[in-house]
Amino acid sequence: MSVKSFSLNCPLPLNTSAVVLLAHGGGGRLMHQFLEQYVIPAFQNDQLATRHDGAVFDVKNARLAFTTDSYVVSPLFFPGADIGSLAVSGTVNDLAMCGARPLFLSAAFIMEEGLPFETLERVIASMRATAEAAGVHIVTGDTKVVDRGKCDKLFINTAGVGVIEHTQTIGPSAVRSGDAILLSGDVGRHGVAVMATREGLEFATAIESDCAPLAEPVLALLEAGIEVHCFRDLTRGGLATTLVEIAESSKLGIHIAERSVPVEEGVRGACEILGLDPLYLANEGRFVGFVAERDAENALDIMRKHAVSAQAKRIGTVAEAPASLVTLENLLGTKRILDMERGEPLPRIC
Amino acid sequence: MSVKSFSLNCPLPLNTSAVVLLAHGGGGRLMHQFLEQYVIPAFQNDQLATRHDGAVFDVKNARLAFTTDSYVVSPLFFPGADIGSLAVSGTVNDLAMCGARPLFLSAAFIMEEGLPFETLERVIASMRATAEAAGVHIVTGDTKVVDRGKCDKLFINTAGVGVIEHTQTIGPSAVRSGDAILLSGDVGRHGVAVMATREGLEFATAIESDCAPLAEPVLALLEAGIEVHCFRDLTRGGLATTLVEIAESSKLGIHIAERSVPVEEGVRGACEILGLDPLYLANEGRFVGFVAERDAENALDIMRKHAVSAQAKRIGTVAEAPASLVTLENLLGTKRILDMERGEPLPRIC
Repeated sequence: MSVKSFSLNCPLPLNTSAVVLLAHGGGGRLMHQFLEQYVIPAFQNDQLATRHDGAVFDVKNARLAFTTDSYVVSPLFFPGADIGSLAVSGTVNDLAMCGARPLFLSAAFIMEEGLPFETLERVIASMRATAEAAGVHIVTGDTKVVDRGKCDKLFINTAGVGVIEHTQTIGPSAVRSGDAILLSGDVGRHGVAVMATREGLEFATAIESDCAPLAEPVLALLEAGIEVHCFRDLTRGGLATTLVEIAESSKLGIHIAERSVPVEEGVRGACEILGLDPLYLANEGRFVGFVAERDAENALDIMRKHAVSAQAKRIGTVAEAPASLVTLENLLGTKRILDMERGEPLPRIC
Repeated sequence: MSVKSFSLNCPLPLNTSAVVLLAHGGGGRLMHQFLEQYVIPAFQNDQLATRHDGAVFDVKNARLAFTTDSYVVSPLFFPGADIGSLAVSGTVNDLAMCGARPLFLSAAFIMEEGLPFETLERVIASMRATAEAAGVHIVTGDTKVVDRGKCDKLFINTAGVGVIEHTQTIGPSAVRSGDAILLSGDVGRHGVAVMATREGLEFATAIESDCAPLAEPVLALLEAGIEVHCFRDLTRGGLATTLVEIAESSKLGIHIAERSVPVEEGVRGACEILGLDPLYLANEGRFVGFVAERDAENALDIMRKHAVSAQAKRIGTVAEAPASLVTLENLLGTKRILDMERGEPLPRIC
């Protein structure tokens, strides 16, 4: 291992901590190290080995996708979304990123003793509305209550089952040199919306989370026969961490231009004040698509027909080199290597 | 509504509390009222309406079962099992109770900052061993970390997908008058094992949880062509609550004899000391099967061939009347009506 790659890959070696840190749940380098060290080897199988947003398998002649996420966002409500819409959108999106049509969701609630029913009603109404918008049914569930002080108001887990109706292989391993990289819209709004609410910050313009189900544009791309190699939604760790994951899994070089990445004025301002980088902020309604170069313009046209990806843009290209690295050309034209999020600037963002 | 059924069904009306109580997660009457009032109407669909342990649906020509449970048991480790084996067994069992062959599980961890990795390793090793024993693969997952004091060490959610390979309809609605009611083994061990560990109680003989995957005897019954009408595992609320659920869903009368229900000596002793009723204690490796009378003996023979149901016994019979009620003939030969658990004697039992 060269000194350079060592310094990029091991900024916070896992073995410096014998206990779980907030950063182990942050979606960045520590979480990946944790998964590689503890989880993936223990449950070793082909599906986990793909390191995708969900598992894909066949049951009889049905090709299915299956995924899960727990939601521990704090606070429960914030501009543009809440834990309920997030819990539905997030799992719908993980299914969509597998190229699946989302069909059925489970909903499991862990509630703290003393949670007002009025809060729960708002959350459930939000889940219902989001499920209807996404065309999925919540068909099974679970309820647990823990004593006061043993959880933080409400945690929700959703798992989802979807069906894959095409024959393309979609995932980091299918990315090819020359692929165009498309981004569905502006980045960073979810992270800023949650943080501003939590910290009681007020900005000149209210920043709303981008939280939304993404299956529509994804399925439209597949139905149009676009040669898609990989989809990935930009959640914890943001655009930068997502791209690094894909570069490392595919062992290819990802090149993007900062000027192509849309960032709303309010988000940019908040980031400047708070010292955050919008490329690392969480999103809950944004995805990247890696598509064959010849299909890039056509794909953008399709994405722009759907409200959730109306601002879709091409942000870069895949190349052979530098292998496993993401290179960003910044606004001044200089290039730098992006790494995953190393610490945990914004815990409990989803 | 007659006075009698009113008094049985509304011991603790939900509207006396504007906030969530521990009993809302206890598997008993309050939890059912909560589900009927808030959850089932909001997400209205055929699968939820069956009120079974999981949802059953078709994708292409595959008939699938899908279920989820969160595990918040305290403490994490106790005689005979731990949160890991529980999280795998519980979800495997919910699939089996749908008459499905369990195939794939998800595993989502919510960890408290500061959780020792050594604890997590033990739990993951236990999940792996139980998954291997049950023949299921853990194929997708999620990791969240919350700040210290915002959860209690570790919560795990598992969801599961199974395939239904027979054509029988299995669920409370399929129960018929005249059905034989079979119980797979002794009851109450899980509840006593967890509580004794939590409270630091020591009994003359260590009582181990019955936690175990149950798919083997269930699938063997189906493969042998036994006419099964309903399976249900006995978790929160115990045998009594499970039977009341089925009586109310099927609108039939369930008659059982207390002398037929096996209770280990140590469990009986602990219950006497602590004022608990073994019929209401949680189990994690026990189920009841409702089968056609003519198949009852054959079904017991099949169940007894599997270690987990080696002590299977017939405990009662279904009749037309008294509709929606469970009648217990106690050891003295007198009869009484069983209701669901009303409060929450043992919170966080699973």
